[in-house]
Amino acid sequence: MKSTATLLISCPDQRGLVAKIANFIYANGGNIIHADQHTDAAAGLFLTRIEWQLEGFNLPKDLIEPAFNAIGQPLGATWELHFSNTVPRIAIWVSKQDHCLFDLIWRQRAKEFIAEIPIIISNHPDLQGVAEQFGIEYHYIPITKHNKLEQEIKQLELLKKYQIDLVVLAKYMQIVSADFIKQFPQIINIHHSFLPAFIGANPYHRAFERGVKIIGATAHYATADLDAGPIIEQDVVRVSHRDEVDDLVRKGKDLERVVLARAVRLHLQNRVLVYGNRTVVFE
Amino acid sequence: MKSTATLLISCPDQRGLVAKIANFIYANGGNIIHADQHTDAAAGLFLTRIEWQLEGFNLPKDLIEPAFNAIGQPLGATWELHFSNTVPRIAIWVSKQDHCLFDLIWRQRAKEFIAEIPIIISNHPDLQGVAEQFGIEYHYIPITKHNKLEQEIKQLELLKKYQIDLVVLAKYMQIVSADFIKQFPQIINIHHSFLPAFIGANPYHRAFERGVKIIGATAHYATADLDAGPIIEQDVVRVSHRDEVDDLVRKGKDLERVVLARAVRLHLQNRVLVYGNRTVVFE
Amino acid sequence: MKSTATLLISCPDQRGLVAKIANFIYANGGNIIHADQHTDAAAGLFLTRIEWQLEGFNLPKDLIEPAFNAIGQPLGATWELHFSNTVPRIAIWVSKQDHCLFDLIWRQRAKEFIAEIPIIISNHPDLQGVAEQFGIEYHYIPITKHNKLEQEIKQLELLKKYQIDLVVLAKYMQIVSADFIKQFPQIINIHHSFLPAFIGANPYHRAFERGVKIIGATAHYATADLDAGPIIEQDVVRVSHRDEVDDLVRKGKDLERVVLARAVRLHLQNRVLVYGNRTVVFE
Amino acid sequence: MKSTATLLISCPDQRGLVAKIANFIYANGGNIIHADQHTDAAAGLFLTRIEWQLEGFNLPKDLIEPAFNAIGQPLGATWELHFSNTVPRIAIWVSKQDHCLFDLIWRQRAKEFIAEIPIIISNHPDLQGVAEQFGIEYHYIPITKHNKLEQEIKQLELLKKYQIDLVVLAKYMQIVSADFIKQFPQIINIHHSFLPAFIGANPYHRAFERGVKIIGATAHYATADLDAGPIIEQDVVRVSHRDEVDDLVRKGKDLERVVLARAVRLHLQNRVLVYGNRTVVFE
Repeated sequence: MKSTATLLISCPDQRGLVAKIANFIYANGGNIIHADQHTDAAAGLFLTRIEWQLEGFNLPKDLIEPAFNAIGQPLGATWELHFSNTVPRIAIWVSKQDHCLFDLIWRQRAKEFIAEIPIIISNHPDLQGVAEQFGIEYHYIPITKHNKLEQEIKQLELLKKYQIDLVVLAKYMQIVSADFIKQFPQIINIHHSFLPAFIGANPYHRAFERGVKIIGATAHYATADLDAGPIIEQDVVRVSHRDEVDDLVRKGKDLERVVLARAVRLHLQNRVLVYGNRTVVFE
Repeated sequence: MKSTATLLISCPDQRGLVAKIANFIYANGGNIIHADQHTDAAAGLFLTRIEWQLEGFNLPKDLIEPAFNAIGQPLGATWELHFSNTVPRIAIWVSKQDHCLFDLIWRQRAKEFIAEIPIIISNHPDLQGVAEQFGIEYHYIPITKHNKLEQEIKQLELLKKYQIDLVVLAKYMQIVSADFIKQFPQIINIHHSFLPAFIGANPYHRAFERGVKIIGATAHYATADLDAGPIIEQDVVRVSHRDEVDDLVRKGKDLERVVLARAVRLHLQNRVLVYGNRTVVFE
Repeated sequence: MKSTATLLISCPDQRGLVAKIANFIYANGGNIIHADQHTDAAAGLFLTRIEWQLEGFNLPKDLIEPAFNAIGQPLGATWELHFSNTVPRIAIWVSKQDHCLFDLIWRQRAKEFIAEIPIIISNHPDLQGVAEQFGIEYHYIPITKHNKLEQEIKQLELLKKYQIDLVVLAKYMQIVSADFIKQFPQIINIHHSFLPAFIGANPYHRAFERGVKIIGATAHYATADLDAGPIIEQDVVRVSHRDEVDDLVRKGKDLERVVLARAVRLHLQNRVLVYGNRTVVFE
Repeated sequence: MKSTATLLISCPDQRGLVAKIANFIYANGGNIIHADQHTDAAAGLFLTRIEWQLEGFNLPKDLIEPAFNAIGQPLGATWELHFSNTVPRIAIWVSKQDHCLFDLIWRQRAKEFIAEIPIIISNHPDLQGVAEQFGIEYHYIPITKHNKLEQEIKQLELLKKYQIDLVVLAKYMQIVSADFIKQFPQIINIHHSFLPAFIGANPYHRAFERGVKIIGATAHYATADLDAGPIIEQDVVRVSHRDEVDDLVRKGKDLERVVLARAVRLHLQNRVLVYGNRTVVFE
């Protein structure tokens, strides 16, 4: 796998955007390996992802951003630039359930996504053993109604200390404060329902009560509004009258880990572009 | 297809239920072709469907109910008895969209379910032509805020006159009053969302706004609470950022007609047992 | 919906392709509304779909092809140019089953795809009535072992006479000869199995015999090799031990009509690019 | 969870079967918690699963079989009797891939199914570390063309020594001989394709070559015919032209582990009844 650069761009729609951006890459000797675009006609927005090989590209990495600025600024564009040889660093936050944690660690080791996982943060001590088994630092930071503010400061310090790029709430089962999210917005959460059905607590119990025939799971970016952030990925599985709440929980776990893993992978490959409360997923 | 009788039974759970019910059939010379049961442990309820051939059964049709009463009453059971050679009569209610209507008519003619469809009722004249094409009576009963009460009386009279057993709201797009439902409770509705997400109006627009990655459709029995009745069937389809509201509507139509048709077929085959706000679907 | 032009291009992969093609559109004042590309690294092929509005485009329609030739030829590209305001003409070929036929006609009238359907061709007289109901010419051309060659000549004449662009085998249940396909290669077939499982006759019976838990349907371009042409779309549905062959047939029909309709729509929107025995579907 | 007994019965169809079997349980004071039946009309076979609580049942465990024999023999029935408090013992066979192994171990520890896993057998030493991590004995038994016969004898001795009830081929990637299967028939295999498509080696490569739009995985009982045994469970996932063979492998792993786990759980709960080359899955 050769190193690549990726631009994720949004700007007001206008003629010549594809040409201008492609010319920038081509004029500097770049070989595009992925280019995809989407126009949201209602919003008047052009959204694109473009990825090219760094090998043979004439601009050194630190000059790409200023160089592209000369094109992007007149277009009124906002953009992100990522390099595939910069390995992102993840903090996995858990509570007591281990299925998503195990799954993410397994996938990282199997190189399904490229990232480092230096720390696990939890409000419970239960999964310390799993962390040790895989040689990852475990930080037990219990949360109560009264200490949430100060504990979130500790959490933010840890994220800073370990240079974390992404927090994955792998069944953390706690609400992260709006203030925290403002300071560290790169957070992916897995919610154990087919959002917007069953926002909040106990979705499987409520799904059972409602007598639904299909249950789901949703991976989304955390925002100040509970379970209302931009959706990255969802999936579902059939249930029947034979399934008790415990069966919904069991079937749901299989959904949760797959949906969360797909979302984390898409995010780490810089395939998710957020605008408004929506995502474009450039698969 | 030989004629059969079907019992749908719910009663408090206790020992010997399967034996007692099966003995009743066997003692009268019946050949069981389908028997399925479910126990809702939390509710302490036993629910079963049992279907047997009338050929060779010693009891004439009109004596089955009183005979079974002798068994069912001591068990505190509620039950329904159906005969496959009694062809149920359906009224299809529509508004302006024709996809579910076409689909139901096609399936009835293809004998995917056995029923007569003597009338179509609509609050708009638009689909009169479809009704004529297939030789079905079309009753145009426009509904306004002011005339709803009297128009529902007309509707009820039609249901009575045509001896209708089941009303299918095939995208009727109107709320049927609680009072109407009390007088005629056998109503299946198709809602164009994955309930309980997007209850009420404009679910596709709201699904688009929310940026979901999967949309659904739900067939349920109509109750006094909007879109909150017992769910019979649901299904879903993937959508992406490329799908505008129109695409959601288009993809949704394919879901709506399949989900509604499955629910109608299950109901007509007496495979749906309602208890509380839930269904057992004996497939 | 404004009129657009669409280019479907394949060429050997090389630097600058996106830029060159986008520049061609931009330099002539075109507004791109869809651009997507794919690189098949193993085959060394670049494949793209680019669609732009004709309004404001400086080149008249009949000069686009020669103008693009100046760019495409040096790149060793093969390409197709389509205009959205040229309405394609479809011949639907059927045998005795009407579900796909009804479905395609309904979708065309609901404008799910833009096309004219001047003729239906069949080896049986059974669906004459459906054709009449919708005012479409019906050509009954019975096929036997002995008359196939001459009947195919008649069929080809009809396609020519009615200026047909696409043949849709909507459960035609006959093998079209390699010779026919050579002369008229634009043929989409629906096969009632999840190819490559159950190639050939009686796939539902064979699926039942094999005891599969899922059945499928496959829409593909017809080629000289039976059921081996490039796949456009597939979908599946669960079955269980309770499903007899008849149930597989019934469930399969719902698959067949949806899968075929999707494939026809994708083809008519010029979203399918065939290379080797594979398709790129630019959704 | 109270202890239960389960009967899986097949016999020629005839009147009174449900009554006779239910009476046997009831007459001995048993409380049925699950009863399901299926009639294969074509085969003239009645197939049932009946599960009841041992608490309050008048017959001691070792007398149930002879007592039921008095009923089953005259009916020409074949049956299996299982007790939920007998914990089955599994040998997991692997090659080099660890995803199914990890998954099965995780589920067993999460009590998604009740079983002991005393040994892992492999033709490669690679997963020794995983075995040690979870405290399971690892037996490295390399297989070559020349030593297969003698190595299978070793394997059979291990199964005997550890009193293994079920062998799970969790991506073992070797064909087990017909002779082995004759001596130890309780073997579940996961095949990484949607059988009967892509029987044998390299299914993902062949799926990619064929250009399919959906891939699958199949769990089945191993028989002497390669990948042709009774299917227990299948599932599928969509792929597109963007998916290389590596992506098919990655997506397929998620299928493989879920499909295999479901099949193992169904088998261990005695919900799978095999007849001919088919299964009835009493869910």
